[in-house]
Amino acid sequence: MVKTAIVVWLSALAVALGTMPRVSAQQPASDAPSLQADGQAAFPDNYREWMFLSAGLGMNYGPNAPAAGQPQSFTNVYVNPSSYRAFMKTGAWPDRTMFVLEIRGSQVEGSINRSGYFQTGVRAIEANVKDSRLPGGWGFYNFGNKTAAVAPLPQSATCYTCHAENTAVEHTFVQFYPALMDVAKRMGTVRADYKEGQAIR
Amino acid sequence: MVKTAIVVWLSALAVALGTMPRVSAQQPASDAPSLQADGQAAFPDNYREWMFLSAGLGMNYGPNAPAAGQPQSFTNVYVNPSSYRAFMKTGAWPDRTMFVLEIRGSQVEGSINRSGYFQTGVRAIEANVKDSRLPGGWGFYNFGNKTAAVAPLPQSATCYTCHAENTAVEHTFVQFYPALMDVAKRMGTVRADYKEGQAIR
Repeated sequence: MVKTAIVVWLSALAVALGTMPRVSAQQPASDAPSLQADGQAAFPDNYREWMFLSAGLGMNYGPNAPAAGQPQSFTNVYVNPSSYRAFMKTGAWPDRTMFVLEIRGSQVEGSINRSGYFQTGVRAIEANVKDSRLPGGWGFYNFGNKTAAVAPLPQSATCYTCHAENTAVEHTFVQFYPALMDVAKRMGTVRADYKEGQAIR
Repeated sequence: MVKTAIVVWLSALAVALGTMPRVSAQQPASDAPSLQADGQAAFPDNYREWMFLSAGLGMNYGPNAPAAGQPQSFTNVYVNPSSYRAFMKTGAWPDRTMFVLEIRGSQVEGSINRSGYFQTGVRAIEANVKDSRLPGGWGFYNFGNKTAAVAPLPQSATCYTCHAENTAVEHTFVQFYPALMDVAKRMGTVRADYKEGQAIR
């Protein structure tokens, strides 16, 4: 009776262990961007719990840039955690990495002797994906203010050329993420054609 | 023989399970701030992997505020992940929560038709800790540009009165973290004496 109970219990344990999720080197990380066969990307629902790279004010030149005379936008950049950890070790982005650009409004305080800018509501979400299945290996996505899956922007979009020509590491503006730029310099992954302090064309 | 092997194996398993770390409701979370008996706080080494709450420009009024005429600072606010998750469910901060204020320099681009501000190196790190063992339950810390443990600032520091009087939720400026402010409004945890849009005194 006891022996039977142990065997049943061991069998249950074996089944439980056998069904535990395992990540092999070949499988993409569980937080990798979810692309469909046609390159469409799912909205990254939990990006606010990803790794924060840096923020800027008035740095939004893309499809959601504010019209002339409108208040500037804050831009917060996030990346999926497994790719962040890989970069901090190697200075390079693994295949299947997603960067999220969270574009928020800005507001100046009302108090007379304080003049700081703080962030307000989300204006739009854009993304940049490194995935070898995409043409050229990179895709830019404009989710706007919706959370539906979207197709990559066409190769004619200015994102592609600007990121190809002006970025410090691969197609990413690591020069604006100081903690990561230090890693890239140490690991020798800064692009040979990148000049520190160069203006964006 | 087989039976003996199973017994030995089960005993080993029991020992392994018994020594696995477990978090009870009484124990602080593993990412909670580490305070010594005298209130000294250890530097939060991995705060850049914590949850990012928001960023501001020119919002640094504390002990590391830039001198008049100096470039404004960016401020990035992080909180330990377990406290973030608790807040997103309840709209309140659990005991033993640490907020990190990462103060960075700012730089304007050189390009003639682009005028955004991006972040540069770390100028200083400050922290705000909620811990019932501290006088009044809150402590403010100035790590400066070092990573040594520091004692809380004295109760006479302006941080204490400013956070007691001008914050939307408990002693924290949740009015500057839009995603969290939405949660606080929904959960009814916004302070009764907080008026939307009020100037900081």
